[in-house]
Amino acid sequence: MSKDKTPRRPRAETPKGFRDYFGTEVTERKAMLDAIAEVYQRHGFDALETSAVETVEALGKFLPDVDRPNEGVFAWAEDGDWLALRYDLTAPLARVAAQYRNDLPSPYRRYAMGPVWRNEKPGPGRFRQFYQCDADTVGAPSVAADAEICATLADALETVGIPRGDYVVRVNNRKVLNGVMEVAGVLDPADPERFAQERGIVLRAIDKIDRLGDAGVRALLGAGRKDESGDFTKGAGLSDAQADVVMGFMAARRDSGAETLAALRDLVGASATGREGVAELETIAALLGAQGYGADRIILDPGVVRGLGYYTGPVFEAELTFEILDEKGNRRSFGSVAGGGRYDDLVKRFTGQAVPATGVSIGVDRLLAALRAKGRTGGQAPGPVVVTVMDRDRMADYFGMAAELRRAGIRAEVYLGNPKSFGNQLKYADKRASPVAVIQGSDEAARGVVVLKDLVLGAQIAASATLEEWKDRPAQVEVPRAGLVAAVRRMLEQG
Amino acid sequence: MSKDKTPRRPRAETPKGFRDYFGTEVTERKAMLDAIAEVYQRHGFDALETSAVETVEALGKFLPDVDRPNEGVFAWAEDGDWLALRYDLTAPLARVAAQYRNDLPSPYRRYAMGPVWRNEKPGPGRFRQFYQCDADTVGAPSVAADAEICATLADALETVGIPRGDYVVRVNNRKVLNGVMEVAGVLDPADPERFAQERGIVLRAIDKIDRLGDAGVRALLGAGRKDESGDFTKGAGLSDAQADVVMGFMAARRDSGAETLAALRDLVGASATGREGVAELETIAALLGAQGYGADRIILDPGVVRGLGYYTGPVFEAELTFEILDEKGNRRSFGSVAGGGRYDDLVKRFTGQAVPATGVSIGVDRLLAALRAKGRTGGQAPGPVVVTVMDRDRMADYFGMAAELRRAGIRAEVYLGNPKSFGNQLKYADKRASPVAVIQGSDEAARGVVVLKDLVLGAQIAASATLEEWKDRPAQVEVPRAGLVAAVRRMLEQG
Repeated sequence: MSKDKTPRRPRAETPKGFRDYFGTEVTERKAMLDAIAEVYQRHGFDALETSAVETVEALGKFLPDVDRPNEGVFAWAEDGDWLALRYDLTAPLARVAAQYRNDLPSPYRRYAMGPVWRNEKPGPGRFRQFYQCDADTVGAPSVAADAEICATLADALETVGIPRGDYVVRVNNRKVLNGVMEVAGVLDPADPERFAQERGIVLRAIDKIDRLGDAGVRALLGAGRKDESGDFTKGAGLSDAQADVVMGFMAARRDSGAETLAALRDLVGASATGREGVAELETIAALLGAQGYGADRIILDPGVVRGLGYYTGPVFEAELTFEILDEKGNRRSFGSVAGGGRYDDLVKRFTGQAVPATGVSIGVDRLLAALRAKGRTGGQAPGPVVVTVMDRDRMADYFGMAAELRRAGIRAEVYLGNPKSFGNQLKYADKRASPVAVIQGSDEAARGVVVLKDLVLGAQIAASATLEEWKDRPAQVEVPRAGLVAAVRRMLEQG
Repeated sequence: MSKDKTPRRPRAETPKGFRDYFGTEVTERKAMLDAIAEVYQRHGFDALETSAVETVEALGKFLPDVDRPNEGVFAWAEDGDWLALRYDLTAPLARVAAQYRNDLPSPYRRYAMGPVWRNEKPGPGRFRQFYQCDADTVGAPSVAADAEICATLADALETVGIPRGDYVVRVNNRKVLNGVMEVAGVLDPADPERFAQERGIVLRAIDKIDRLGDAGVRALLGAGRKDESGDFTKGAGLSDAQADVVMGFMAARRDSGAETLAALRDLVGASATGREGVAELETIAALLGAQGYGADRIILDPGVVRGLGYYTGPVFEAELTFEILDEKGNRRSFGSVAGGGRYDDLVKRFTGQAVPATGVSIGVDRLLAALRAKGRTGGQAPGPVVVTVMDRDRMADYFGMAAELRRAGIRAEVYLGNPKSFGNQLKYADKRASPVAVIQGSDEAARGVVVLKDLVLGAQIAASATLEEWKDRPAQVEVPRAGLVAAVRRMLEQG
């Protein structure tokens, strides 16, 4: 019986696919999000924070590549309803735009940042909770709104520290693709539902061009593709001639926007939708060009389609063009960090009325990884100055020192562990990346002084071959107690 | 069949008990949390952000007043495990402290801020997702750590805008209460489990003194209490003499800390635990006093016990002492906005080894409500300058104006709705609380000028009885296009 009374100890583990963020991991992300929020604000977007929980029916089934309800989300039943954690920030926006449509300004321009959750198989670097950071305009039919989203995105990237030349925003238009589909004979304007499945396969195939290459995409446009593991993915069943048209579309990017537009105009032929799409791209390029967003920052690129089924017009993607070393040590371009487009039908799900909308979502973790790779993160807090404890009964004095330092804006704390080992106190200061340790034993107290240990310099001296070069700058100084703050500040400035 | 093909429209509704936050609701909270984070940082705490999802077994059943597992949390099954949304930030910290115990500095001082979720019946002003903002020190046995948490809390309150005199941090000690329980005969040091249920009832009764009054608490200490609705709550079953001891403890607060300590010393008599508790309170008061945190900010108050079962030593609570009008128009003191204490056994659940810990949690929504009541919130973004659209084919010019304003740090946007009604554009600007509207029709463009409409002044004029007083300051001015930024800035400065 006594054994039954001892409960099994719980495991101290982050749930599978989730992770914890410590110290600068948190503050660096915060600094980046703050900078992006500032750009979004300046462009006229207002903050919105919806609850993490939505009804499953409000979320809908727009999760990429998921056709079954509840699949891909964390959901639970409540009083006959199903609730779920949001999987992106767009579905909640559509719900808000419908719910508050009589009170919100129109157009409604909002930004949102926060975690989203995906109930997917976790993998290396693939987590089930991650941040998104979106800006959207709801209720603006003109592609001027799309152009502005692209400009905002470019501004945001530069503001957080991606220099011009290191990124490019690629713009395309689903209407152009639809025009091409018409020409290829897999879209019948008189019966839009016909061939919908085939078009879905085409869309996803194009979206995977970077990974699969031309041959892989071509296989998916035709009968299908067997991957390295032997798994077979059914293709769209297009004929060679049809596939040629689609492949031609993806390769339609030319050296200049005007030439790309001309190539696209050729490809869409007489398709009204296709021509409308080309005209929209032309307008977007003109609007951006007039504001100084030239081809060094934003380009027309038919290769971008975005996998999501709900886009209805312009689509865009921000790619970082500088190279990094991947896990295998190969140089490769950093890749996509943001994407978005126009989705005119999401709000209609709720209200029955079409509400034009467009927006962008920044992949926070990927952009942050890019900033780290470039050494451009902000938000690092310095380690605290640690006031060590030499006499256990003089804690009040030590607290007084820490309080004085803080009042001068210096991060500081008293060592709060068991003070009996001074070595442990210095080890602690080291682990906290503390720049300075303050020491005052009874002897120093009697003489009205404190000892300051410059831990940054100390580490440099320890790492250095010769002590000679450091002899003019001692790693430890004794200063009058009254001069504590000034002396610490001096040490921090030298550090 | 065609009817079956039309899916029912989803309801556009925030799930019951959840809410959405718009604009300044988001930015004001953010400004407050940023200010608190800055204080926590300066006191040496490091950021930690755990995942929103935990295993149910890691969370444990420490939710206030909940004895059944899973009750009170949002939980779902996964591969035989149960996952749940965290209900506070302390349980995840205990998990982290156990999981990373070999890597974290010791003591581990961390702050955390973010939403937590409670699966409770929603009520007015009672939501199922809300923010907490905590600072904790794990691995510090001395009450110096508790004193520092109290000092940090006081600093945080003043930094966000609660002036000294408008708040008080009340400090008590569970050990003193345990000593009193010994004296009352409901705690047997030789058999700590005995009377555990009775003590639980006593604890919760004391915690409700503000709501129930002396008579209500007294009833709960005895046979029990019937509330207005007729519901009966079973009491602790204490005799009158026992209840007298407990009631005496709650009323032991005296005018000065020294007198309160003397009263408590009397009450705990020979109880070793009680005497230790009084000595700890004395140390805390001395440490705080030496740093200048006097009785105008932090006081000893035996009336504070905190409902949570897991506290093992000092407990504290921050109360705002200024009065506000409640829903019924009565003046009442604002009340508690933060609380915490020492919980030495939470990490032990995982590791089997006792790890001393102490911390505080700020109720973000309540503190924000207090700042709003005092008119002390920051973080409000001004409405954007709206560049109106007079000629649809001159969008590029309008975008150029907005871009220029933004480059000068002014929040600005082009109107992106359907521009055909100028009235709608001004209505939009009004809804966005826009300070200035920029107008340029073809006539103005030809003359190289823009018209600026001062919407703040316009509103003042509209609200004013006489136009006389405004005649020297026109609500609308024409300026050269090249002087756009300077003129807008001037208008904003006057506004």
